[in-house]
Amino acid sequence: MSLTNASPEAAARAAKLGSRKLAVLPTQARNDALTAIHEALAKARDQVLAANAQDLAAATKSAESGELSQSLVKRLDLGKKGKYEDMLQGILDVRELEDPIGKVDVRTLLDDGLVLERWSAPIGVLLIIFEARPEVIANIASLAIKSGNAAILKGGKESTESFKVISTVISNALSSTAVPNDCLQLVTTRDAIQPLLQLDQYIDLVIPRGGNELVKSVKKSTQIPVLGHADGLCTAYLRADCPASVAARVIVDAKTSYPAACNSLETLLVDDVALTDLLPSVAEALLAKGVSLRCDAPSKTALSKVLDAHSAALLQDATEEDYRTEFLDLILAVKTVPQTSTPTAALDLAVAHINEHSSHHTDMILTADETIARKFQEAVDSAGVFWNTSTRMADGQRFGFGTEVGISTNKIHARGPVGLEGLTIYKWRIDGQGQISTEYKAGGKQWKHQKLPIATHERIAATDEELAVLRSFREGQSERRNGT
Amino acid sequence: MSLTNASPEAAARAAKLGSRKLAVLPTQARNDALTAIHEALAKARDQVLAANAQDLAAATKSAESGELSQSLVKRLDLGKKGKYEDMLQGILDVRELEDPIGKVDVRTLLDDGLVLERWSAPIGVLLIIFEARPEVIANIASLAIKSGNAAILKGGKESTESFKVISTVISNALSSTAVPNDCLQLVTTRDAIQPLLQLDQYIDLVIPRGGNELVKSVKKSTQIPVLGHADGLCTAYLRADCPASVAARVIVDAKTSYPAACNSLETLLVDDVALTDLLPSVAEALLAKGVSLRCDAPSKTALSKVLDAHSAALLQDATEEDYRTEFLDLILAVKTVPQTSTPTAALDLAVAHINEHSSHHTDMILTADETIARKFQEAVDSAGVFWNTSTRMADGQRFGFGTEVGISTNKIHARGPVGLEGLTIYKWRIDGQGQISTEYKAGGKQWKHQKLPIATHERIAATDEELAVLRSFREGQSERRNGT
Repeated sequence: MSLTNASPEAAARAAKLGSRKLAVLPTQARNDALTAIHEALAKARDQVLAANAQDLAAATKSAESGELSQSLVKRLDLGKKGKYEDMLQGILDVRELEDPIGKVDVRTLLDDGLVLERWSAPIGVLLIIFEARPEVIANIASLAIKSGNAAILKGGKESTESFKVISTVISNALSSTAVPNDCLQLVTTRDAIQPLLQLDQYIDLVIPRGGNELVKSVKKSTQIPVLGHADGLCTAYLRADCPASVAARVIVDAKTSYPAACNSLETLLVDDVALTDLLPSVAEALLAKGVSLRCDAPSKTALSKVLDAHSAALLQDATEEDYRTEFLDLILAVKTVPQTSTPTAALDLAVAHINEHSSHHTDMILTADETIARKFQEAVDSAGVFWNTSTRMADGQRFGFGTEVGISTNKIHARGPVGLEGLTIYKWRIDGQGQISTEYKAGGKQWKHQKLPIATHERIAATDEELAVLRSFREGQSERRNGT
Repeated sequence: MSLTNASPEAAARAAKLGSRKLAVLPTQARNDALTAIHEALAKARDQVLAANAQDLAAATKSAESGELSQSLVKRLDLGKKGKYEDMLQGILDVRELEDPIGKVDVRTLLDDGLVLERWSAPIGVLLIIFEARPEVIANIASLAIKSGNAAILKGGKESTESFKVISTVISNALSSTAVPNDCLQLVTTRDAIQPLLQLDQYIDLVIPRGGNELVKSVKKSTQIPVLGHADGLCTAYLRADCPASVAARVIVDAKTSYPAACNSLETLLVDDVALTDLLPSVAEALLAKGVSLRCDAPSKTALSKVLDAHSAALLQDATEEDYRTEFLDLILAVKTVPQTSTPTAALDLAVAHINEHSSHHTDMILTADETIARKFQEAVDSAGVFWNTSTRMADGQRFGFGTEVGISTNKIHARGPVGLEGLTIYKWRIDGQGQISTEYKAGGKQWKHQKLPIATHERIAATDEELAVLRSFREGQSERRNGT
């Protein structure tokens, strides 16, 4: 890793050149580099935590004067119980994942002796812009090396001291491995973000890891593709046939287990036939956890009738704006889906509301009816469409990806939790024996376009009837092999 | 299809709403729409060609006064032998392709009774900006409907009359099908491109189909992802062990079969040990086809010695700029790869040249050595890496995709020739039975993360030891089923 005060352009160019060396390293060489990083960071624990304490002291002072938020100070703290160990374990977890590079997923016989294959390959150079969390550096370094990508890391100034030490440790560790140091660039230069975002000749993908404002400002400033999500406005649609205990349990989890997370619940849609029997127990469970409920008129009226006076007094009125708001707090907007002629028509109204208002991150339906659930999952245009489980399940670790790069609300490339696979693209290989395009014109040779088993890797031989040029080509090969 | 003079915003909003209805249509309904379009366009042949003749007459006039190029006039001509039939056949070809929507490619048991699946899904709304070719409208309409995407089409003004008739025919045909008319929007409003490019709340992907200038200007003007290629600077690397007949044949095809195409050859790298034995026959074949050779000093010297005086006099001197130029014409830049200590080192030099100079579209190696070819295919960072076959093979039809959307030099989402699959993304579905995220904290339940066969579609049942909440959930379901 280069801890660099070099210009953004020099850093990006070095990363690009390094990326091509990294891209051709075998699996074992990339895994060995992760082992080396893990060992070095385990040994350097005290040194890293001492630097982190410096960052933490400065941040605490800034927080006291109101410049920084308390939650940022918390995210900065690497010494918190188990956090350093989690960071170390994350490196090993990534190492143990299947190699995402060099996998063949398409294999087509175009013609005799002419085989097309699609191979997974690294994207190239990633630019990761992140805010306070210092563990991201180890996390991203692991994911980048495992997937054969170079990475340029630009962190928040609050964690400068931690980054300097971590990057020096990683740099020393890498020098004993086959991974070129240039493949990881930590840019400490101030005001480097804007110049980096202009370097589309070197950088292939930008991944902002931070709040909405960071993601939005990055998207506005670059022609490089951006992988990230700006908002997480998640919705639950509660049907009358969902058992009350399940409804309360799942909705409480989705709303309260981590209200500041992007996969937390922000809006509850409820069928009007569920207002009196089912909604009250859900509302009581939420109120007991300190959640403010912003209700439309039908749901407020129904709840007011059955809740005790104390609870009823806590209910608030929802505005239209509430259904477009990512609260990131213990607030839930509640909206009634009016009963219509058919149960499916109510579903359609709920789906239309979600497609119009949600941020297409993750939405869930709570129902005992599989047919309704399937229609919901098909019609809702979101990265995650969950049935009878919490929106909080939208997470790379829970999906089994190991560490996650982030969660994408993009509609192309990668959607939802993004793991190693989201850091890959593919190449098209063709192995031929001298075939040319004009042979396949109208009246000429016919394309075979036959799907081949992906596992078969022997080269497909041409038939005896093949064209003279193929024969001469093989003769040429064989003459050379025989040294004639 | 709506032939609209509505505002760009109204057209885009209508497309977005229509896209959600299209997205849930079954395969058969989408295929039926293609059948209807095919029949209608077959019947309307005379009417379409009459309108096309009007466009052609106007364009011919503009070409005479030098406002339009002759090649644009040619591309405009739908009456050219076989072109209308090809357009019609293309619709049927797309209809016969496998449905790209609703395919499951990941299936993971997260825990008992908790299954994660990844389903392919349409992207949403595509904006297609194209230049003269009027057949693109039928082509893109087919691809969009088949893949469940709405499309907004904005064509060049030269083909206005053809578009008006084609779109009216398609619109009438669609009205008898399940596909909403709003899913295809033909925008005829002038100056609509810039406003459309700002509508990222409605449009998910922009596909410019035209020259470099169009693609570059679109990329600069929008935050919406753009699928396209700006340049096609393709390279051949010729090794001394390639039989002369194969070398000449493949290189002549790559350079001369369609010089204006993006997959045509622009640079030839040749090992210095091949300059005297192999290069002359290749050069002669190219010169015979009228190709201008721009050579570096070693290749020019070698060729001058062996070619006849007439041919030798045709050789030109290459500049550094020639190795960065997409000629799109009968010109080829030739560069010598100096012999080094090992054959692999020469390969490394060729690869480094390509990674630095090529546009990462398609590059090929001509050699009898499989080990060298594999290294080349691994190390060259391009969408297509071909061995002993022409760069001109980089084409959706040749790859067996049916009609192609275009060729992408992007490093994310889709790379190389893009067919139906490039117009899809996926959703993550989870089917649960009331499980919540906090159950899986440290010390709690363990994730199973077990890969399941993709073909198995029965719902995975939970075990007898499952949590009480799951039991009560199933009891609730069963009570409801029994009407108690």
